[in-house]
Amino acid sequence: MSLPFPSLSAAEAAELIQNGQTIGFSGFTPAGAAKAIPAALAEKAKREHTAGREFKVGVLTGASTGKSLDGALAEAEAISFRTPYQSNATLRKQINAGQVRFVDMHLSVLPQNARYGFLGPIHWAVVEACDITPGGGIVLSTSVGASNTYLRLADRILIELNARHPSSLLGIHDIFEPLDPPARQEIPVYSASDRIGSPICVVDAKKIVGIVRTDLADETGAFDEATPVTDRIGQNVAEFLAAEMKAGRIPPQFLPLQSGVGNIANAVLGALGRSTEIPPFQMYTEVLQDSVVPLLENGRCTFASTTALTLSPEAMAKVAGDIEYYKKRIVLRPQEISNHPEIVRRIGIVSMNTAIEVDLGGNVNSTHVMGKTMMNGIGGSGDFTRNAYLSIFSCPSTAKDGKISAIVPLASHQDHSEHCVQIVVTEHGVADLRGKDPHERAKIIIEQCAHPDYREQLRDYLRLTKAGHAPLSLSLGLAMHRAFVRNGDMRGINWEEYR
Amino acid sequence: MSLPFPSLSAAEAAELIQNGQTIGFSGFTPAGAAKAIPAALAEKAKREHTAGREFKVGVLTGASTGKSLDGALAEAEAISFRTPYQSNATLRKQINAGQVRFVDMHLSVLPQNARYGFLGPIHWAVVEACDITPGGGIVLSTSVGASNTYLRLADRILIELNARHPSSLLGIHDIFEPLDPPARQEIPVYSASDRIGSPICVVDAKKIVGIVRTDLADETGAFDEATPVTDRIGQNVAEFLAAEMKAGRIPPQFLPLQSGVGNIANAVLGALGRSTEIPPFQMYTEVLQDSVVPLLENGRCTFASTTALTLSPEAMAKVAGDIEYYKKRIVLRPQEISNHPEIVRRIGIVSMNTAIEVDLGGNVNSTHVMGKTMMNGIGGSGDFTRNAYLSIFSCPSTAKDGKISAIVPLASHQDHSEHCVQIVVTEHGVADLRGKDPHERAKIIIEQCAHPDYREQLRDYLRLTKAGHAPLSLSLGLAMHRAFVRNGDMRGINWEEYR
Repeated sequence: MSLPFPSLSAAEAAELIQNGQTIGFSGFTPAGAAKAIPAALAEKAKREHTAGREFKVGVLTGASTGKSLDGALAEAEAISFRTPYQSNATLRKQINAGQVRFVDMHLSVLPQNARYGFLGPIHWAVVEACDITPGGGIVLSTSVGASNTYLRLADRILIELNARHPSSLLGIHDIFEPLDPPARQEIPVYSASDRIGSPICVVDAKKIVGIVRTDLADETGAFDEATPVTDRIGQNVAEFLAAEMKAGRIPPQFLPLQSGVGNIANAVLGALGRSTEIPPFQMYTEVLQDSVVPLLENGRCTFASTTALTLSPEAMAKVAGDIEYYKKRIVLRPQEISNHPEIVRRIGIVSMNTAIEVDLGGNVNSTHVMGKTMMNGIGGSGDFTRNAYLSIFSCPSTAKDGKISAIVPLASHQDHSEHCVQIVVTEHGVADLRGKDPHERAKIIIEQCAHPDYREQLRDYLRLTKAGHAPLSLSLGLAMHRAFVRNGDMRGINWEEYR
Repeated sequence: MSLPFPSLSAAEAAELIQNGQTIGFSGFTPAGAAKAIPAALAEKAKREHTAGREFKVGVLTGASTGKSLDGALAEAEAISFRTPYQSNATLRKQINAGQVRFVDMHLSVLPQNARYGFLGPIHWAVVEACDITPGGGIVLSTSVGASNTYLRLADRILIELNARHPSSLLGIHDIFEPLDPPARQEIPVYSASDRIGSPICVVDAKKIVGIVRTDLADETGAFDEATPVTDRIGQNVAEFLAAEMKAGRIPPQFLPLQSGVGNIANAVLGALGRSTEIPPFQMYTEVLQDSVVPLLENGRCTFASTTALTLSPEAMAKVAGDIEYYKKRIVLRPQEISNHPEIVRRIGIVSMNTAIEVDLGGNVNSTHVMGKTMMNGIGGSGDFTRNAYLSIFSCPSTAKDGKISAIVPLASHQDHSEHCVQIVVTEHGVADLRGKDPHERAKIIIEQCAHPDYREQLRDYLRLTKAGHAPLSLSLGLAMHRAFVRNGDMRGINWEEYR
């Protein structure tokens, strides 16, 4: 079928985008991210810079992306503003050097903030699709993210039509965009498997100024391998959840799971998959990684709602090869819906996310190393945690060969407050903070979760903090971080030096 | 009509309650709080203590209460555990001395945490009513709070039937308790004025072990008077909202308002009431104070949804005197519904809450003075802020005659993270943090909101923090707090002393 839209090369498409414009790109993780046009835009930026002209754009996405988007544009120094999340090393460096303005945002609020006008005008939507109809129906590829919103809000649209993704993905997406207040109604999802919207995005065809044909694989990277530490964390989470079910605090049908990204999340899912005490479960989450595919295959996971299929080429081939099976078991939703507080609270999600550090009050740092250096961003962890039936944060008890303790007196940056953090898990154990006051929380976090090398110095910190509802010392709260900056090691701190 | 329930004196009722038990009391602010039974229970505790016996109970409520509840029980040293919020001076002292275990909790999650079993068994519900039917129908009084949940969950029930509240309050309440996951459905509130439940709580009549007849007024205290500073803050908020509407970022119908408690909230509502640019508005909030009554009378506020009618005796007499008028314009909901994230996000609330301090990253401390001393608790501020269309925090730029700056480099306790705080207002101006990165936020907060006495030293702090995404110095972040503890004044800090 011939399409009524101009066929462009990526370079021709990039030529249309002007300095200072804001672009909403597809991509939630490298899954479904635009690839050819941002890479060509990076080349254009380099040419412009060589010619002595300014060229920078504002980059909005679903979440992180791949090397052809964040990577290439960062290397070309072509990004002025970036939101809501990223994970690229070059871009991270520019953000932390103050060269790129980065706003770290809850992923579920990004689309509404764009609609409300809080992020200014969006000039372009640059979106990957696996199919398109002459009337302006767009079948997205391996993620939805915020693409549906960008397609609707943007002045003009460029489509990367990617032959690598089978057009039989049609039907895996469920596109639903709520009205804005005061007209908004309920989001009618009552179970992870409920479909409430359309399989395609429908846009004003006149806005589509060109189609760029590509055949590029998603630039998904390998996650770190499991280790004895991540396996132990996974096992601790699985045993805790089984015990909660036995105690009647989780219903016998179990509850839908949300799981973060990375090797800890994989280890947790692996352990839950193997558990003989936990019944088959649903997932309501934002990213589906390789580890879920065998669980969907063997029936341990009965359904997975997500906004991104972040699969290795091998796992993606498996899903594509039996697409009708997986379309009955996977739905890709907009991130506004996959992470929506209304649904998270309604269906009673058990949220499982990763912390950079946890402090003795039960506050979690998800974003900043030593309080200053942005890692990736808060992502969806706040959307899920804040509204979960049960919120779990896990991390290895130490980092950098033991030189950094993940359990610290005071978090150097706080993304999740004590009011929303219920369970903390490391390879050493589980701290159940529910119904505990701050002093009890501090003790249980030290004794259950801290690495043994750090327990005595953390107990010393508690002894040094004078009475008060929260065991905080204004002078010593961040002293372990200062010791690391000074000496390269948090261990063996001399508290007196910092008083 | 004679009731099939034993009539008890307060002392007889108190006699039934045993050491170590957990009680769910009515009361959200002093409005509708149990009065006679807790006061008698305090007397019993004193007698038991004099006799050398242990006597302490766990105290659950809606939020804060009055002097006969938190006050009397604290003075009798009869509280072992307290959640979710309090504002009594004696109890505060005990909490901060570590004598009472206090868990500070988002008010909307309290009822579900109780249902999920996270707070242990609830032995008693002690609830004030303005009427009761022989079959177990309870008409609550001036608040709902968590009473509906306590009545349902508790093993046994004691009712304070208070003749001071007119039985014509029947119909002002809207009792709705969601099912728990996985059976929960939507909360069908689409506008502040929607009624979705029952005017009475229906309980198993066999659980009601006694009725205590009282005639006690709600122990509502006077709020601090407006000052030029609070008036200026109110004016700044009103002007900001009018400008947002003009810019098209707030719809022309306006949006429902949530407003915290106290004289700043009163000043804000006063300014919004007087504004000629802002159309008549609805409120979806947790506490209705005196300042709303004239707005309901003159039509500036067209409807108010709340969980507590926290009125002075004069204002309460006015409402009671024209109860049919006010029942068409006020609904009292359970705190689980008045503060529910699903509704807050759906109807697009503008949340307006008070901060103790705001840091240069845009993080807010709502609870702890100098990071250690619990003031009252987070209350509903997190429920509203986190899900608001637009979230505003306001405070005077200084406290203690200028010796404390409310704008600090790093908040000494964090209840609301940078991800949820959009607008900061002091008497000096408005900092709009939307779409700003951390360095931009820091600058705008200093220049718009900090007191002029503090601006230069805060600019110095920014100059002293080295590059990084967040302008944090691990050694200097809490130095202004340390200076206050040392010298009684945050002004004129010598940063070098703290490096």
